[in-house]
Amino acid sequence: MTARPIPEPFENLHDRILDVVGEEGVVAEAGEMARYLAEERGRFVGKAAFVVRPANTREVAEVVKLCAEAGIGIVPQGGNTSMVGGSIPFEEGDEIVLSLERLNRIRALDADNFTMTVEAGVILQEVQQAAAAADRLFPLSLGAEGSCRIGGNISTNAGGVQVLRYGNTRELVLGLEVVLPDGRIWDGLRALRKDNTGYDLKQLFIGAEGSLGIVTAAVLKLYARPREIVTAFVAVPDPAAALALLSRLRGASGESVTSFEILPRLGLEFTLRHIEGCRDPLEAAHPWYVLVELFGGREDGGLRELLEEALAEALEGSLVLDATLAETEAKRRELWRLREAMSEAQKFEGGSIKHDVSVPVSSVPAFIAEAGALVTELIPGCRPVPFGHLGDGNIHFNVSQPLPEAGGDFAPGKAAYLARWDEMNRAVHDLVVRRFHGSISAEHGIGRMKLAENERFKSAVELDLLRTVKKALDPHGIMNRGKVV
Amino acid sequence: MTARPIPEPFENLHDRILDVVGEEGVVAEAGEMARYLAEERGRFVGKAAFVVRPANTREVAEVVKLCAEAGIGIVPQGGNTSMVGGSIPFEEGDEIVLSLERLNRIRALDADNFTMTVEAGVILQEVQQAAAAADRLFPLSLGAEGSCRIGGNISTNAGGVQVLRYGNTRELVLGLEVVLPDGRIWDGLRALRKDNTGYDLKQLFIGAEGSLGIVTAAVLKLYARPREIVTAFVAVPDPAAALALLSRLRGASGESVTSFEILPRLGLEFTLRHIEGCRDPLEAAHPWYVLVELFGGREDGGLRELLEEALAEALEGSLVLDATLAETEAKRRELWRLREAMSEAQKFEGGSIKHDVSVPVSSVPAFIAEAGALVTELIPGCRPVPFGHLGDGNIHFNVSQPLPEAGGDFAPGKAAYLARWDEMNRAVHDLVVRRFHGSISAEHGIGRMKLAENERFKSAVELDLLRTVKKALDPHGIMNRGKVV
Repeated sequence: MTARPIPEPFENLHDRILDVVGEEGVVAEAGEMARYLAEERGRFVGKAAFVVRPANTREVAEVVKLCAEAGIGIVPQGGNTSMVGGSIPFEEGDEIVLSLERLNRIRALDADNFTMTVEAGVILQEVQQAAAAADRLFPLSLGAEGSCRIGGNISTNAGGVQVLRYGNTRELVLGLEVVLPDGRIWDGLRALRKDNTGYDLKQLFIGAEGSLGIVTAAVLKLYARPREIVTAFVAVPDPAAALALLSRLRGASGESVTSFEILPRLGLEFTLRHIEGCRDPLEAAHPWYVLVELFGGREDGGLRELLEEALAEALEGSLVLDATLAETEAKRRELWRLREAMSEAQKFEGGSIKHDVSVPVSSVPAFIAEAGALVTELIPGCRPVPFGHLGDGNIHFNVSQPLPEAGGDFAPGKAAYLARWDEMNRAVHDLVVRRFHGSISAEHGIGRMKLAENERFKSAVELDLLRTVKKALDPHGIMNRGKVV
Repeated sequence: MTARPIPEPFENLHDRILDVVGEEGVVAEAGEMARYLAEERGRFVGKAAFVVRPANTREVAEVVKLCAEAGIGIVPQGGNTSMVGGSIPFEEGDEIVLSLERLNRIRALDADNFTMTVEAGVILQEVQQAAAAADRLFPLSLGAEGSCRIGGNISTNAGGVQVLRYGNTRELVLGLEVVLPDGRIWDGLRALRKDNTGYDLKQLFIGAEGSLGIVTAAVLKLYARPREIVTAFVAVPDPAAALALLSRLRGASGESVTSFEILPRLGLEFTLRHIEGCRDPLEAAHPWYVLVELFGGREDGGLRELLEEALAEALEGSLVLDATLAETEAKRRELWRLREAMSEAQKFEGGSIKHDVSVPVSSVPAFIAEAGALVTELIPGCRPVPFGHLGDGNIHFNVSQPLPEAGGDFAPGKAAYLARWDEMNRAVHDLVVRRFHGSISAEHGIGRMKLAENERFKSAVELDLLRTVKKALDPHGIMNRGKVV
């Protein structure tokens, strides 16, 4: 047992849960609890009566049943890498955090069925590695893959850099095991490609951010491991040229384009300026870049020649200004580093107001132009750095604060700039939704951060449907309450 | 107005609906109604007060609202090609049929977004053709494509012969417009690849067989049109060899395998015997065959050589016994004809008891062996013809009646054989679910035909979840009642 006293109303629950999960399964000491109560950026810091870490599905179910009986709210948590506060309890301290980190077994891998059965707490990178060890690919790939857990990926329908080819997490899940808000276990762990025996219940829990139940295990789809990976860093005159290149490459390669990421010159400059070991892979400066990657089935299967030919043709037509292909894996990683450093590099350029939005792929050029004009009108001198998954229409529209007058440091104006976060968000989101029929949260979810903003845009019918689903599955509202809907 | 009198309790409703949809929108004459009340096989023949054919979404909504107020059940209907009676009203005649056939416009096609917006009544083949005209592929492909309608495909999560590469209909839908059971319209017609702003509501209506609302329009995903199609007819010693060949080809081709269909020798013999113009494409007889098709991005992109090499290697290892590649489009169609004729050819061999089941792909060989032994024990002499989508683990396990004694015709024993339909279904389904954790309806859905059988296998928790969803969305139970759940 721990030294810190359990708040009185939770004493009985705490003791009953302790009986279920044992000492290793409860964390109640403030210092030990800290990492469950705040996320990396420190943007959300919550409180909890205590943290429960069940060791298996049965324990999860019993804990949930006890909480349901006591009417105590539960915040399910995976790797705690949510960007929207979805995994952090509120400040009242009247909820418990239920961490899935000890449900970390890979239960099965069936290479001929191209599936893998994993528990919710397995770290994404371990899923990827286990698949690779069986000569298979689990294609979900994103920045936090070394620490996020697959249950969280499923519960947030995570996206990442290979969605264009393989889909979001939703498309990678064949079956689920879920502990329902009343503590019953739904065994939907089917490993089938086709199953039309009623509503597809797993879809309810994928992307629900733990608000309808707790995902405890899943059957994941695997793919053949690529034998040929071709990566190019391509300079283009503008986003419209990038879009035209994307359509051409999709057609010419038989849908082998796995990633198609756009970067503006300013973003590259930030990276070159602030991130050690990065260099411009092209000789001259260009206004826009695309990082494109193709996966093929055969070593030397001709994808490289295909890409070279397509780029040469595009160069002649002025769709492409310059390009370089990665000759080695080291070079490939260098090119990816330029893309991956985008967020990090912006930190050295003062405050950054962020948006995770999507529009139809065909609308990305117009969106980038209009959103840039809009924020510049709002805050003259601000510096938009729109980058990300052009292939999915998903742009991380991050806007760095204006350059300091007289070239000083950014600190003096930073707080005032960031104080306009909500205002800029609203303006950009209005444009995204009303003009482009886009999404104000393409891959990060709603959590608590975007709850009010989301309600601004959803129709009355849609809000009613969302709440009807929530109420039907979690009538007492104990699962991740106050989030998502 | 029509001559046939409207049943008294529906008179008022009929007149009010007539005001909404006009004369062209109501069919009440028995002869004209017939095609809406029975399906092609004549297995289900229902009754209805009348048939409504609204011309647009607003009319659908108003009709539904009037029915909801009157408490009258609605059977939504697309192309009426359901295999399980899902589109046929019950015999009581106290429902109306709402046909979507007049909502048949293609609203938009956005080639750079790889999307198309269509109304529910567009025939699948017209969707395919419109995509092709824009140099795109809509990959859903199945036997009824000339008459089924896209709203029905969506409402049944249709499968078909290209699921291995492109997924079921569910994976091909980005957005939906739905008329809810109270007549409100939910506009979820988003054309986005990524959108995590709450529960993915469209998933509720996909595959719900019209029991939660009426799909009136959808945004569909398109793909690059293939430039190279390679098709082979391959003889293999057994299903295990077919499975090993599938894994090898998926890996070697970078997931270019689009179709992988298995056929037993007996099925081919039926076809050669009964279907005009079919011939054995290989010199000798072999126990099993696979029809494999690969889609590639480039004309002469090397897929043919890849397949030839892989088959040659497999021949050496005795995984493959013989093979032929289609050299022309005409030859390709000939090979496909052998696969497509499977059901038709069985009609000439007496009664056939059918199953549309799926198991993990890796379990298909064991399933075929054990199911074959099981039905043979049940009805000695019966002739299993398991064929279909090995690549999806989806086998159409059809069993022809025993050969007539003394070589006569099949008629005398047919009725007695078919009388054992339910008994054989139960035995095969038990095996599918209890031994292989498979599905008793892989792609056809539940409708009314499989309702009781489905309830035998669903857990109490799952049945409760299914009914909870139904009750939440359709509290008065007017949408396709008595079906699905």
